[in-house]
Amino acid sequence: MNSITSAAPGTQRIFTSDNTAGASPEIVQAVIAAASGQDLPYGADRHTAGARARFAEVFGRDVDVLPVSTGSVANALSLAALTPPWGSVLCHRDSHINTDECGAPEFFTGGAKLVHLPGDDAKIDAEQLHAAAHRKVGDVHSVQPSAVSITQATETGALYSLDEIRGLSRVAKDAGLRVHMDGARFANAVAALGCTPAEMTWQAGIDVLSFGATKNGTMTADAVVVFDRALTQELSFRAKRAGQLTSKMRFQSAQLDAYLTDGLWLRNAAHANTMAARLGHGLKALHGADLLHAVEANILFCRLPQPVVDQLLAEGFAFYHDRWEPGVCRFVTSFSTTEHDVDTFLDAVRRLTT
Amino acid sequence: MNSITSAAPGTQRIFTSDNTAGASPEIVQAVIAAASGQDLPYGADRHTAGARARFAEVFGRDVDVLPVSTGSVANALSLAALTPPWGSVLCHRDSHINTDECGAPEFFTGGAKLVHLPGDDAKIDAEQLHAAAHRKVGDVHSVQPSAVSITQATETGALYSLDEIRGLSRVAKDAGLRVHMDGARFANAVAALGCTPAEMTWQAGIDVLSFGATKNGTMTADAVVVFDRALTQELSFRAKRAGQLTSKMRFQSAQLDAYLTDGLWLRNAAHANTMAARLGHGLKALHGADLLHAVEANILFCRLPQPVVDQLLAEGFAFYHDRWEPGVCRFVTSFSTTEHDVDTFLDAVRRLTT
Amino acid sequence: MNSITSAAPGTQRIFTSDNTAGASPEIVQAVIAAASGQDLPYGADRHTAGARARFAEVFGRDVDVLPVSTGSVANALSLAALTPPWGSVLCHRDSHINTDECGAPEFFTGGAKLVHLPGDDAKIDAEQLHAAAHRKVGDVHSVQPSAVSITQATETGALYSLDEIRGLSRVAKDAGLRVHMDGARFANAVAALGCTPAEMTWQAGIDVLSFGATKNGTMTADAVVVFDRALTQELSFRAKRAGQLTSKMRFQSAQLDAYLTDGLWLRNAAHANTMAARLGHGLKALHGADLLHAVEANILFCRLPQPVVDQLLAEGFAFYHDRWEPGVCRFVTSFSTTEHDVDTFLDAVRRLTT
Amino acid sequence: MNSITSAAPGTQRIFTSDNTAGASPEIVQAVIAAASGQDLPYGADRHTAGARARFAEVFGRDVDVLPVSTGSVANALSLAALTPPWGSVLCHRDSHINTDECGAPEFFTGGAKLVHLPGDDAKIDAEQLHAAAHRKVGDVHSVQPSAVSITQATETGALYSLDEIRGLSRVAKDAGLRVHMDGARFANAVAALGCTPAEMTWQAGIDVLSFGATKNGTMTADAVVVFDRALTQELSFRAKRAGQLTSKMRFQSAQLDAYLTDGLWLRNAAHANTMAARLGHGLKALHGADLLHAVEANILFCRLPQPVVDQLLAEGFAFYHDRWEPGVCRFVTSFSTTEHDVDTFLDAVRRLTT
Repeated sequence: MNSITSAAPGTQRIFTSDNTAGASPEIVQAVIAAASGQDLPYGADRHTAGARARFAEVFGRDVDVLPVSTGSVANALSLAALTPPWGSVLCHRDSHINTDECGAPEFFTGGAKLVHLPGDDAKIDAEQLHAAAHRKVGDVHSVQPSAVSITQATETGALYSLDEIRGLSRVAKDAGLRVHMDGARFANAVAALGCTPAEMTWQAGIDVLSFGATKNGTMTADAVVVFDRALTQELSFRAKRAGQLTSKMRFQSAQLDAYLTDGLWLRNAAHANTMAARLGHGLKALHGADLLHAVEANILFCRLPQPVVDQLLAEGFAFYHDRWEPGVCRFVTSFSTTEHDVDTFLDAVRRLTT
Repeated sequence: MNSITSAAPGTQRIFTSDNTAGASPEIVQAVIAAASGQDLPYGADRHTAGARARFAEVFGRDVDVLPVSTGSVANALSLAALTPPWGSVLCHRDSHINTDECGAPEFFTGGAKLVHLPGDDAKIDAEQLHAAAHRKVGDVHSVQPSAVSITQATETGALYSLDEIRGLSRVAKDAGLRVHMDGARFANAVAALGCTPAEMTWQAGIDVLSFGATKNGTMTADAVVVFDRALTQELSFRAKRAGQLTSKMRFQSAQLDAYLTDGLWLRNAAHANTMAARLGHGLKALHGADLLHAVEANILFCRLPQPVVDQLLAEGFAFYHDRWEPGVCRFVTSFSTTEHDVDTFLDAVRRLTT
Repeated sequence: MNSITSAAPGTQRIFTSDNTAGASPEIVQAVIAAASGQDLPYGADRHTAGARARFAEVFGRDVDVLPVSTGSVANALSLAALTPPWGSVLCHRDSHINTDECGAPEFFTGGAKLVHLPGDDAKIDAEQLHAAAHRKVGDVHSVQPSAVSITQATETGALYSLDEIRGLSRVAKDAGLRVHMDGARFANAVAALGCTPAEMTWQAGIDVLSFGATKNGTMTADAVVVFDRALTQELSFRAKRAGQLTSKMRFQSAQLDAYLTDGLWLRNAAHANTMAARLGHGLKALHGADLLHAVEANILFCRLPQPVVDQLLAEGFAFYHDRWEPGVCRFVTSFSTTEHDVDTFLDAVRRLTT
Repeated sequence: MNSITSAAPGTQRIFTSDNTAGASPEIVQAVIAAASGQDLPYGADRHTAGARARFAEVFGRDVDVLPVSTGSVANALSLAALTPPWGSVLCHRDSHINTDECGAPEFFTGGAKLVHLPGDDAKIDAEQLHAAAHRKVGDVHSVQPSAVSITQATETGALYSLDEIRGLSRVAKDAGLRVHMDGARFANAVAALGCTPAEMTWQAGIDVLSFGATKNGTMTADAVVVFDRALTQELSFRAKRAGQLTSKMRFQSAQLDAYLTDGLWLRNAAHANTMAARLGHGLKALHGADLLHAVEANILFCRLPQPVVDQLLAEGFAFYHDRWEPGVCRFVTSFSTTEHDVDTFLDAVRRLTT
């Protein structure tokens, strides 16, 4: 099913996704510390209390937090609380919820419909959103626009500006829709925009956030962050019912706590972004490589001659290359990518293109 | 919501459940080892391959394994693969799926019905099962008996003998039903019965097993073990759709691998069982304590005078005591319970009852 | 699947249920009248407007009405609007929703749980309701009591008094639950109690009513009657989504309109009740027949010697007889049962028992 | 909600849809005949047996038939039997199931996904189908192509040729997909193509058919016709669970029986088609009217000057005109449309455009 060659020891050669990295040492330490002694189950433990306080600090206000096991759960749970079964979720055509979750949102919502919108760089166009948000409202023959979901950073590594987020939220709110943010790469976006988490979320109209951490340093800990706290009770029952209320929640909370402590999350993300920028800079300088857009976060797209692609794969580098037009490749960096990893790869491309 | 007093450092005073323990050192080591280096996502990693091999070894045959984040997910996923939406799951009235999962089985199955049966010690009575399995079969006005779910060890710590499991399976199979085992305390049962995992599962007619590990030493890793492998593809799609396909599956698999290596799982369980036996033995010797049944695994029920209960709670011991008849208390031991913990508690009871 | 012998022409010999009757002549006339000419679809037609006005008249206030194709739909739709997926519906163990709808409530609610209560004559006991309504409230591990459903007349033909309905509603409302009435035999109950529809429903705390008409004279037209009109919008979307918004709604509305015009519905029901009373009176006088309770509506239970049962069946009479203790038989009369039908049957029993 | 002016008595002026017609006299007679006497419930009656035999005759083989209350139910039920919750249904972007059923297919399937395809005249393009049917097959991150649904006649009144249906079925079957036909206007298509029902369905690869009758002469009776009879048991349970198993099924069956008797269904459809052709012919001859495509069944699209549209509406004619490009109007004829109706309308257009 998966033919990616394993990385040679010592060098990270996999650029398929940031989910191929391990965990940050700080996260590992936190898990070790959480492993001994008794503590209360189902979130009544000390680590969960600590993580909650940390989230409040980071977001500049009280928020409710539900640790979850994957980003797919975070998304599907969030949408279930924002959309009735006869509702629709407006999202980008290429959004993860629409293309990569095997219908998890449909499952959790009880059969709501994802209505997908076009837009460059996997970003929803505000005019398209406006039209869709007002389509067939009140018409009993049609599912009812109920929520919009935006991904920040997007699936192609692009960023919505704060103004763009506010604009989409305004369109949504004016039409009575709630706003969800899929923040699988939330940290990368905050680091890149240089804004506060508050500015990018509740201050910009976000009601519920899928807070991704796994791609950026934790092991298996993501969270739903609830700004519209009227939704929390429903979310709690839905989470339990989805099997997400872990007895030993301390292990998830310890990770999230450490992740948010001393800025680890932003350091990791900034590093990943820097590595992508370095890779982009290096590729740009090469004659045979054609960078397809500016690098904003930790994903970049580049066109390479097919023989070069083939040879890179043969040498053990891994990246997605056969999902788009011929020659278009995607590269993702992570907190664990090193300058050496990037340079080793650039050396290979340089050698093959000259 | 939860008023259990925190344990004093150094002594484990919480006997509410085995879910208040941390993780075994071997599990922690495995997680540390899994944390560095790149590896493939979604189960294509080395640790998952290792865990699969280990499961095959332990069960004496090839099996399919889906790591999941909780026992509730393991149960609900399994039942969804065994029961159509218009089916019913026959289970004990006091089973966890019926009383403690906020309707997770109903959610995952698309609205199947749990039909609950009576029986002592939370064990399903074979005659009751026979009657229920044949009730309204083919009657389009009624949900159709489709699966039976048995919990081993049961919610009260009792054990089905191998003969009893085989007997229930036979009743089920004769009626065309599939058989699920909720093995939240699977290891405790195997250790107590002294049988092989194979004997207690597929050789006794079990089609799918919820393999619990979290209560017995892992952090947050349980699994669905599939013996009727025709179900695996459906289970895989359902798991993804439920948000259970973790990108960094290595962290779950590393735990499961270590758990099954060198008999850790059975050592842990045997220890928990021994501690319960020690506790039972101690209580039996006390005049004021009335042990309610033989101790078979790691749970025991005992009647204590209300003033004794109150004083034990006041001294910081924690256990469930207000869910049954007055004075009836439940005590659960775990892999991390020590003789000192048990004896400290027994000393307190002795002091208060004499 | 169904071995009931067809009735001899001229005499109605089927007492299995009131659903074996045809339709009242007035209903047939209304359908004929509705069949010609164009009219607007989806309830914007003249007949639907007329039926709505009639319902308002009959219930003494404005109500919202959704025509539906069966009583099962009426029940399941109503419950879906009253109960979240993580909720529970408290109902009698023998209620139709629990035993005869193949899980329709679970399907429409997205997997809510029916929690069934005991009680004589298929009537919910108020104390049992109180206990169940307060069980595990706020406990995230448990489905949450959300609605109570009472059947009037009950599945055994018994009646709740107005005081009993008010009492159950009070218990429900005090616990924050909504109240649904399954009125499959609503007319029989109103006729028997001699009260107004208002007294038996919204004045007694009912939020939503399954208004049965099919058993009492219409062809295929039942309705959801909404007293808590905040639920109407949700019900409309759910009804459409369940395929219940008929384009030619005029045909259902014409039936409902005629049914409620000039007291047809109450005349029909009173007649059915009278026929049951006549049957009960006749059986009581017979030595070999043992009437099991007072006849309140149009259903009665009676114990007959097995040879008598066998012979009655052999002679072409049809009734349920093998669902309860040996010899217990159920007889149901309808608007179309005649004195001749009853007397013919009584003659047969008399002949066989003497 | 609906601002269509009622038709003047004597002339049918509503061309919005064929659902504004009443019922054929033969259907009315059948309902009258079914209304008296007792009969068995839930499909064990004489009329249902008769209707089944008629369907077998019409389709040239044994088929299973489930009467349903609407076309939406027919579609959603059918798709639920053809698609697992993690499956996708490939359908045209403008198909009724995608745009006009408020998510009924998503509800009945437990959250499957409708994947919509482009194509002229609301017809699925075979190449697009081929691509979609093979997209991400076996990829656990994606819903799995499971069924294709084609509408015959289409939502715009176009027809698939027999060859086209066979071609799409072949593509579907080769990819392991089942084929559903939404036959809301099935009769119009058969009449227009001059083929047998068998040729257009099971002989062309259709597994399940939504057999529409309501638009073409019945009151409220449509049906699911099952060619792949392995699906029937599942469909029966799903139908009951959806509240579609009517107790007095005789009233639906009597309509369906009469509809199929002596070719009524084809006469009605042929008449509607002829009226559309007459309307098309008339419009074509008018200078100001611009017929947008050939008239194949009973729907036509025509562009008219806006002042003409406004004046026609003012005069009490009703038709859809504001759902497409400015000036584009849709006209639908039915079995009850008369030459006089068409000519009256044409006269008006002629008067206004010259």
